[in-house]
Amino acid sequence: MKKLVVLALLMPALIYAQDYVNDSVFIRQVSDNILTSRTAYNNLFHLTKKIGGRLAGSPQMKMAEKWGAQALEQAGADKVTLQQCMVPHWVRGGKDKASVAYKTSDGKVKTIPINVLALGNSVGSGPKGIKAQVVRVHSFDELEEKKDELKGKIVFYSVPFEEDFVETSNAYGKNVIYRAVGASRAAKYGAVAVLVRSMTHSVDNNPHTGSLRYLDSFPKIPAAAVGLRDVEKLDSLLNEGKAITAHLFTYGKMLPDEVGHNVIGEIKGSGQPEKIITVGGHLDSWDVNEGATDDGAGIVQTIEILRAFKALGYKPKCTIRFVLFANEENGLRGGTKYAEEAKANNETHVFALESDAGGFTPRGFSIAATQEKLDKLKSWLALFQPYGVTDFMVGGGGADIGPVAEAYKIPYGELRPDSQRYFDVHHAVNDVLENVNIRELKLGAINMAALLYLVDKYGI
Amino acid sequence: MKKLVVLALLMPALIYAQDYVNDSVFIRQVSDNILTSRTAYNNLFHLTKKIGGRLAGSPQMKMAEKWGAQALEQAGADKVTLQQCMVPHWVRGGKDKASVAYKTSDGKVKTIPINVLALGNSVGSGPKGIKAQVVRVHSFDELEEKKDELKGKIVFYSVPFEEDFVETSNAYGKNVIYRAVGASRAAKYGAVAVLVRSMTHSVDNNPHTGSLRYLDSFPKIPAAAVGLRDVEKLDSLLNEGKAITAHLFTYGKMLPDEVGHNVIGEIKGSGQPEKIITVGGHLDSWDVNEGATDDGAGIVQTIEILRAFKALGYKPKCTIRFVLFANEENGLRGGTKYAEEAKANNETHVFALESDAGGFTPRGFSIAATQEKLDKLKSWLALFQPYGVTDFMVGGGGADIGPVAEAYKIPYGELRPDSQRYFDVHHAVNDVLENVNIRELKLGAINMAALLYLVDKYGI
Repeated sequence: MKKLVVLALLMPALIYAQDYVNDSVFIRQVSDNILTSRTAYNNLFHLTKKIGGRLAGSPQMKMAEKWGAQALEQAGADKVTLQQCMVPHWVRGGKDKASVAYKTSDGKVKTIPINVLALGNSVGSGPKGIKAQVVRVHSFDELEEKKDELKGKIVFYSVPFEEDFVETSNAYGKNVIYRAVGASRAAKYGAVAVLVRSMTHSVDNNPHTGSLRYLDSFPKIPAAAVGLRDVEKLDSLLNEGKAITAHLFTYGKMLPDEVGHNVIGEIKGSGQPEKIITVGGHLDSWDVNEGATDDGAGIVQTIEILRAFKALGYKPKCTIRFVLFANEENGLRGGTKYAEEAKANNETHVFALESDAGGFTPRGFSIAATQEKLDKLKSWLALFQPYGVTDFMVGGGGADIGPVAEAYKIPYGELRPDSQRYFDVHHAVNDVLENVNIRELKLGAINMAALLYLVDKYGI
Repeated sequence: MKKLVVLALLMPALIYAQDYVNDSVFIRQVSDNILTSRTAYNNLFHLTKKIGGRLAGSPQMKMAEKWGAQALEQAGADKVTLQQCMVPHWVRGGKDKASVAYKTSDGKVKTIPINVLALGNSVGSGPKGIKAQVVRVHSFDELEEKKDELKGKIVFYSVPFEEDFVETSNAYGKNVIYRAVGASRAAKYGAVAVLVRSMTHSVDNNPHTGSLRYLDSFPKIPAAAVGLRDVEKLDSLLNEGKAITAHLFTYGKMLPDEVGHNVIGEIKGSGQPEKIITVGGHLDSWDVNEGATDDGAGIVQTIEILRAFKALGYKPKCTIRFVLFANEENGLRGGTKYAEEAKANNETHVFALESDAGGFTPRGFSIAATQEKLDKLKSWLALFQPYGVTDFMVGGGGADIGPVAEAYKIPYGELRPDSQRYFDVHHAVNDVLENVNIRELKLGAINMAALLYLVDKYGI
């Protein structure tokens, strides 16, 4: 009897210990399977080198959707569906270019090219370009101070991407507003175009695009990002007190909406199939690169988790949806549609996870959840540490899963890979396959798989 | 009185809390200083693009020594000295090449080039090259089984670099013996040359060199590393049962020893100057690349820590030596000399730290020390976590500091950056500046600076 009592007292700890062993064995199996498979590399190769840049509405978007459905099927999805949504169709329309002119000390006018890339959604300059004097500002406060000088001018937002944040997305978070609404804020005072310092601290001169949002009340004016070495050149000339004239050529235009799709693979739940866990990334990318990091990595990870789960014969209790979202970059129509359809179909959603911060070596997960739920996640940390995840932090989940998570008030999260290299390639021409390390990407997938497995098994 | 007692009881905790605040403030200052400075990038640029590959004995080694002394002075060293040591002088002597020939299904002989790179220290093939049948082995066990077939043959060590280790250096640790002594082990049975699968799991076809060590009792035969895509080609032909003949041309030779130097910068201790803490990396690199990761990163970090310490007016209690070691790659003469001189001069050494695992984002430190000392280090972890280091693990310190640590039986350690990308570039042509992210490298330097600061302040 005494032994039985002791045993009864020990049972929870024993079960816990046995669970821990089982869980760590399963995660190791996932890791071995993914690290030794070539599928992730082959998928990323196809998406980047055979399809390439795949902005919403483009022919490449359609190729990517078709490929994505096949890849999910080949990975073993129980079911693959295409969820239709209308997407914006912005086109660059030509090769963006710009030059600046200033007087040298001997009074001659010198004209030098600068490296620019029109911001997504922005209007073009017209065939003759836009030529005007440059007014530099370092902040919106300075813009307001100079509001009377802006009429007919090109505003140059020279806002440094701060280097002393260890987590680089903090610098992005501070500055991205200048890319997003800088054009409209300047147009309000009569500016005719804007140049924006690229959202990066890279050592090269690649300009970094990204979407802008025109505010309805003001004229739409062209906007372009400038490479950092040319920003330094401009800053140096302006610091010398030189008057600078810029000549900007961009060709962007918004065409009628196109039919796009979220591509959805599913593993049907074995115990509570009505409960849905979502994992995904976004299939679209900018037009000027291969979208290898943003977000080829998240797409390949999503498919890879499905493949490994099926290869290992894993049967989750809940239904897991592997979603390749449409149009994250300049509209979020895919993520919005996914939430709308969920509500319309009376689905039950319990958790959502995204990877859209690059295929870099994993560090942690940011989770939008209560402290209690976060503590539960933290209690699993020892299971993740062998694979690089050492923290669960409070923070946003991914953009695409935001709408469904908001609609259901469920916890959601995002893989947080190491952030140092992200803004070297983000929305720039060098976001290519060669700048992804496939093992780092795989480690991200392994940690995501582990999190999905634990949430499915223990709830959150 | 009661209040005084309470205060007395609280004092250790208060001191501890105050120390913690002071320490974390200092480390943040180091971080801000290093992350916002351009010196690290400029130094790495000079070392890689202006000097380049700098194998022991080469003219570039001498340029690097001169540059290193200047860089340490500019960083603010109290004293810079050159510590002479004789170094081996191996030269590649020409462009390594190889081809393999086999019969196609229609009976014709097909000859295809394969991508090879002679191993460091290896002898050349002679001007006509070495042509012989290929015998493949997957292990030394298989070599022994086939020992009667090896006379006059070229042995091909096709030993997979295992992919399921999360920490890639574990795969290297398992396989490097084939590169190190594979030639002599095969020569023992009459083989005339060896080809070794490159120590990597990269997706390209770059061969990876590295030093070999001839065992005295056997003939010296040429040895070369083969790129992975060509290894797959060879394996596939051999798996089909084809007889393969290889023709290998290498030109390596060992010239007389040259005069080299450890380049040493110093911050003199303010309290216990006789106690010496050493930090360093190695200045030499392989000849075929820029040595950006191996070990330009460690060199630049070493200089950067010195620069930041001086810029912040930090005065350590102990003397800190910043050492750019000579000849790690194919001799370890620099590290050996450093220990000999320390003993000869009756120096007192207390701790040594190295960075020679790349300038990748930091993960932890491996420390060769007792568990008690390791626990002390672990108690500091919260101070490192904001900068990426989340673990102190038992393990080796760096190669260069091994001799001094062994001579003094002191704890020593090595920065452990994320290991996924290391073997993509290790000893291959693509170990260049472009494959280093300067912010990741800087984070390594920040964590190393933090460790030196804490060891100096609290002892170990």
